Formats: sequence, structure tokens, C-alpha cells
Amino acid sequence: MTLDHARRLDAADPLASFRTRFLLPEGLTYLDGNSLGPLTISGRDALAAATERWSRRLIGGWNEDWIAMASRVAARLAPLLGALEEEVLIGSDTSTNLFRLAHAAAEIAPDRTDIVTDDLNFPSDRYVLEGIAKGLGRRVQVVRSTDGIHADEGAIMGEITDRTSFVCLSMVAYRTGYLYDVPTITDHAHRHGALVLWDLSHAAGVVPIHLDAWKVDLAVGCTYKYLNGGPGAPAYLYVRRDLQGRLRNPVQGWFGHADPFSMVEDYAPSPGVRRFSSGTPPILSLAPVDGGVQPTVEAGVARVREKSVALTIAFVEEVERILVSLGFSIQSPCDPARRGSHVSLGHPYALAVSRCLVAERAVVPDFRPPNVLRFGFAPLYNRFEDMVRAIEQTAEVVRTGAYEPYLAARPFVP
Amino acid sequence: MTLDHARRLDAADPLASFRTRFLLPEGLTYLDGNSLGPLTISGRDALAAATERWSRRLIGGWNEDWIAMASRVAARLAPLLGALEEEVLIGSDTSTNLFRLAHAAAEIAPDRTDIVTDDLNFPSDRYVLEGIAKGLGRRVQVVRSTDGIHADEGAIMGEITDRTSFVCLSMVAYRTGYLYDVPTITDHAHRHGALVLWDLSHAAGVVPIHLDAWKVDLAVGCTYKYLNGGPGAPAYLYVRRDLQGRLRNPVQGWFGHADPFSMVEDYAPSPGVRRFSSGTPPILSLAPVDGGVQPTVEAGVARVREKSVALTIAFVEEVERILVSLGFSIQSPCDPARRGSHVSLGHPYALAVSRCLVAERAVVPDFRPPNVLRFGFAPLYNRFEDMVRAIEQTAEVVRTGAYEPYLAARPFVP
Repeated sequence: MTLDHARRLDAADPLASFRTRFLLPEGLTYLDGNSLGPLTISGRDALAAATERWSRRLIGGWNEDWIAMASRVAARLAPLLGALEEEVLIGSDTSTNLFRLAHAAAEIAPDRTDIVTDDLNFPSDRYVLEGIAKGLGRRVQVVRSTDGIHADEGAIMGEITDRTSFVCLSMVAYRTGYLYDVPTITDHAHRHGALVLWDLSHAAGVVPIHLDAWKVDLAVGCTYKYLNGGPGAPAYLYVRRDLQGRLRNPVQGWFGHADPFSMVEDYAPSPGVRRFSSGTPPILSLAPVDGGVQPTVEAGVARVREKSVALTIAFVEEVERILVSLGFSIQSPCDPARRGSHVSLGHPYALAVSRCLVAERAVVPDFRPPNVLRFGFAPLYNRFEDMVRAIEQTAEVVRTGAYEPYLAARPFVP
Repeated sequence: MTLDHARRLDAADPLASFRTRFLLPEGLTYLDGNSLGPLTISGRDALAAATERWSRRLIGGWNEDWIAMASRVAARLAPLLGALEEEVLIGSDTSTNLFRLAHAAAEIAPDRTDIVTDDLNFPSDRYVLEGIAKGLGRRVQVVRSTDGIHADEGAIMGEITDRTSFVCLSMVAYRTGYLYDVPTITDHAHRHGALVLWDLSHAAGVVPIHLDAWKVDLAVGCTYKYLNGGPGAPAYLYVRRDLQGRLRNPVQGWFGHADPFSMVEDYAPSPGVRRFSSGTPPILSLAPVDGGVQPTVEAGVARVREKSVALTIAFVEEVERILVSLGFSIQSPCDPARRGSHVSLGHPYALAVSRCLVAERAVVPDFRPPNVLRFGFAPLYNRFEDMVRAIEQTAEVVRTGAYEPYLAARPFVP
């Protein structure tokens, strides 16, 4: 694809105008929205309003606005997850949210000793599961991918038995972009009486999600990737309505109390999803999430997905045409129906190439150890032009040996 | 005390210039810094810098600044707690931090079944302890205050036995302002082999704290009160250095990993206090904490405490002279050595009086159910003039019946 061809596609793109909603530096080809989405204009304004409110209204800010902020954001987020507003909670980080839900799931079935996950799941999610297994005397079963790219969904389902407490997987694998068949695995787990807990961090905002229709039990996810919430922005969690009353939040905090402002002596959990709240939410980090989610809600995930698929298909074609002969291998599923919105490329000098692209070429992919470059496509601001530029610059950096000065670089990526 | 007298005291106050570091609305008498401290100029600038960095540098912000932000804030905070930098961690909310430390403390002594606390502790802390007791099969013993104002420290120490796992108390009681004898209770607990966990939320920044010298094991606290970190700003935790390697964080997250960026499969906890981290810290909420703490560090807690004691002594004298005859009772210790930096007053119409003061008199105390008004004195921006104005306006609101339209108000305070 030439730059001209890419620009014609961009000119015809029905989502093109959404790019103006983001504060992106001039000339930057940013393909790391799957790690940290950009600041939106609406997010910037929401943050400014919260800061101004703090300075002018002080404690009064809580009653005026902040106490309702988390539920306002949850209400905006819910349709992106295919969930009801009263099934979504926002606050805390993804690991802590995962801990709370996974601990609750393990606790209600003390005779079910096994937790099933796989090696494509986030290491961070696996750390949380290991911790719960250690605390409660459970066992984590890690199903291996056969090729390191595709999940072995058959093997995962084969591991699910009447001893399985719950299955915890990432809907889109952070490293390879593999997109799971959520309803089939969910159904299968339910037939064995197990619960499912999906991490949606790399899926929400770019892949259609129908938690209610799929009868998913539990889910978590972060808001700082395709949802543009900001660095370390509060994460969300989902608990299916009919499950809420049965699950216990191990971190019994006052924001999860049935009547938090009564400050009574004894804990009584909120009957709804709010029981999974613990402490006071971080307002300044929460404020831009509402604004960050807004463009995606307006565009609609179906349209976002359509453009995402077109972008990753074109990217994979260009990789095959230009980059494979330069030592790159595709580390993501080739079938777009099995792929999220990022594409991973293996290269022996992936770290040095990524450093050179960022430092000298104004192209920002990200690096995942040991040797993977991830190119994330966020269709509300990434254009076909960005895709072509990334291919061109990556090819040039390798062809010219421009990456060589970066070979001694140490990885350091959050 | 007349307004003139107060103004003379303010003019002679060596801390007077610190008031210019805070963004306080003109004409407001803000005596609720024990609930939410004001925005500082340095905090505002730090937040603006983080936001600007997000928009200009995107993911690059992590390596440039954000990854080190939590330890930078911890280093600034440590001297205010009498702790080493490597004993303090910042991130998450107070309830979640308390959960992590209390769970760890309970877990290392499975044969010690009892957790000792008292009824002056935050209800929110007690909810957390109850949750841990339920999960791990422990028992929470709640020692009662005899007069509802002073802690019964003798009774607390009497409850500590060889079956005590840990003692959890608030160094300054949120409702009455009672200031505990931390070293004596800590010593006593240690003689029985129990640990201590102090909540410093109402103490840090206004009361001298010497965690290391007192041999305190564990502590937590929030940063949004006298430390001016902002609404829902991240909380801190403290683990004494020699204990760190023995305690397990139940929420095993990637930020607590020995090598978080290696993303290896297995969890290996950081050898130090960082093992108590879990997920990604909320950068925009963290940024203003550094600036918020700064004025207190510069002033020095000893000088802050001196002025705090002078303010609360003068306030109590004025209450006795003017407000007691209007139906107010002092619900805080009269001995300043046993009092933190706020004074609580009981009144049958406390809620209506507080609403009227806020809505009509530009005086902001806070209300705690069922009938308590709290007046918090933050010596870096509160003046003797504020104290006199609060007394005058409170007296007038009661004398004139101006509070009556607010009698139907419902409490709603975070």
C-alpha cells in the first residue's frame, strides 16, 4: 500500500473525524494505544473541572459531583461491555479488582480446588491467581499454547472438570492479540458448574463484547488502553446481576457498605455490585475516564471493530510483503476473526528496533520481552497513513542498520 | 478571644507565610482539612505537568517520570512518619492497604486467633478487619471506650494476650480526636508477641510520628487529609524493614514483583516494601500528593504541632466560654497532650448547624453522625482568625435559629 492509497482510504473513512477528539502530538505515529491511550479533549476538560472544583469547593466537591462520578463512568462503560449499568463498578486497579472477584469465586466453592488459566494470559493476572491459590489452598492449572500465538481452546475446555472453581482468561491475549471464543468457553465452563472470569483489558473499546448475552459471570479490565482513561486510571469490574448477592468481597471497605455514610459499626454489604468497592476512589484519575470513553461510545464498537479489522488486515499484508524478508515474523493470528486490534511481530533485535523507531522516527510501537514488537491500532485516531508509515520506517530502520546503536538498551516498559 | 487578638497572634505566627502555598477561596473559613486538604500550588503544578506529559509524551511518560513517582512521594513522606524511605509505599486506598497488611499479619501467625481493636477506630477499618476475620477464621475483639471520647488504653492492653495476632488502632481517633500513646501500646503488644498496625490518617502531618523509634510494625494512612493530596488520593503503608521479607501480600500484583518488567511467568515478591504493591498506580491522583506534602515537610511537624496545640487550646476555651451555654458539649479530650488537631462538639442539631454554617456563613466544619461537629485545624493555612470566626458564626447560627431550615437535611458525607 502506498501512502497515497492509504490517504485515500483515510479520506473515505467514516470515523475520520474522531481523530480531532484526541490530543496527539503533531507528526507522531502512535501505535501504542493498547498500552496507554492518548488524552482526549473531553478527558482533559473533565480533569480540569475536577481540579477546579477541588480548589473552589473543597470537601463540597464530594456531594456536588465526585460521589456520583464512579457510577456515571460505569453507566457510560456498561454498553461497551454488553452489560447493565448495575453490573459494572469502576475503581482500584485491575490486579486488585481481579483479586476481589477471583477470591470471591474461589471462596463460594470450597470443594472446587482448581483454577484454570493459560500461558497467554497476562503474567500479572497469573500472579494474582497464584496468590489466591496460596492463600486458600487452591491449584492453578496453566494450559499451554501449542504455537505460542493461538490459545488452545480445546485443551482449556478439556481441563475444565467438576473440580474447577473458575476459569480466568484474557479475551484478547496481550502478547499475540489472540481473540478467544468467549461464549463457547463460558458455556462449557457452566456445564461443569464452574464460573468464568474474563480480563477484557485488551478487548474493551475495540472488540464487540456481550457479557450479558454470553452469560459471563465475572470480568475485569483496565481503562487506560483503548478506553483512553490515563496513566494508571481506575479499572472496572463486572459481576452478573444474579451472582452479586452470593459473592463476598474480601476487602470489605466502606464504599462497599450498604449505607456507607451511616458509619455504623458493623459491615453490611451493598446488595449490588457496589459491594466490590473498598476505599475512596481516586477522583483526579477517575475524571478523565468518562471523557476518554466518550468517543468510543459515540462511534459504536461495531464501527470501530470494522475499521480495526481493515487496519490489521492491511498491516499484516504489508508485513508479509515488506518486513518478513527483513527478519520479522508474525506473532499474531492471521485470521482477523481470531485477532484483537494489535499485531505482534517477532524480530531478533525487537528491543533495539523499537527504541530506534521511538527515538528517531516518531513511530511508537511497544516492546514485550523477549523479542516482540506490538503495533496497536486504535481506529478512532489511527489512520491507514499511520500503518503505512510504521511499515516504511520499520523497514528502513532495519535496512539501514539504524537500530544498531540501541542494541545495548535494557527493556523498561510498564 | 477577640478578632483583633486573633489577628495579632496570626501576625506573630512564624508559620503564617505557608498559607500562601494553598489555593483557598477568598473569605472561606475552612476547618475541614481533616477530611480533605486544599489544593496546593505545588500540587496543582505537579498535576498540570503530569497531564501535559501524558498528552505530549504518551507511553514515554512512564520511563521519563511516572514509574519513579510513587517512590519519590514515599521518600518525601517517610520523614513525616519517622520512617526510612524503604519502609514506605504509596498507592491504592487506605482500606485496601489495611487489608493487605492486616491479612499478612494474620497469616504469619495462624495459631493467634485474635485481632484487637477498639470502638474509636474508623468503622471502615473495622469493616476490613471483620472481612479478614471472616476469611481466615479469626476473631475481632472490639474494646469499648468508657466515655465515648477517650480510648481505654488499659482495657486495650488488658485484651492483648498470647493469642493476639495484631492490634489495630487509629493513632488519632477520627471522631473524638483522641491521641493514643503509641509507644506504650506497641511495647505491650510486643511483649505478648503480637504485632501492631496503626492507622495514621488523622495524625500524619499534624502530630509527631516516630514509627522506627517506637518499633511500630505496620502502619497505613491516607494522604487527602492533612497531607493535602486531593480527593481519593493514593494512601500509604509502612512495613518495618526487618519484617518486610516475612510478610506476604495477598494481592500479588506485578508492581510488587521483584522484577516487574521482566513479565516472567512466576511471581517472586520484591524483597522490600514494594512487595505490597499490586497494580499500576493512578498517576494523575498521585501527582499532587508530592506537592501536597511539601509545605508540611518544609515547616517541620514539630512546629506544626506547636501551633496546632495552641489553636485547639484556644478553640476549647472559646467553646467553654461561648458555645457550651448554647447546647454544645466538648466531645474531644481536654488535655491537649491527648488530642490530635481537631476538636469535636456535640449538639442536638449538629447536622443542621453544620449545613447552615456551610451554606450561609462560609464556615466549613464537618458533621459525623449522629450529632457531632468536627472542627479541624490545619496549622499551615488555618489562622487564629479562622478559629474565632468559627466560634462567632456557630454561636450566631444557634442564637438566631438560622439552622432551623436545615433540620430536615439528610447526612451525606464521605
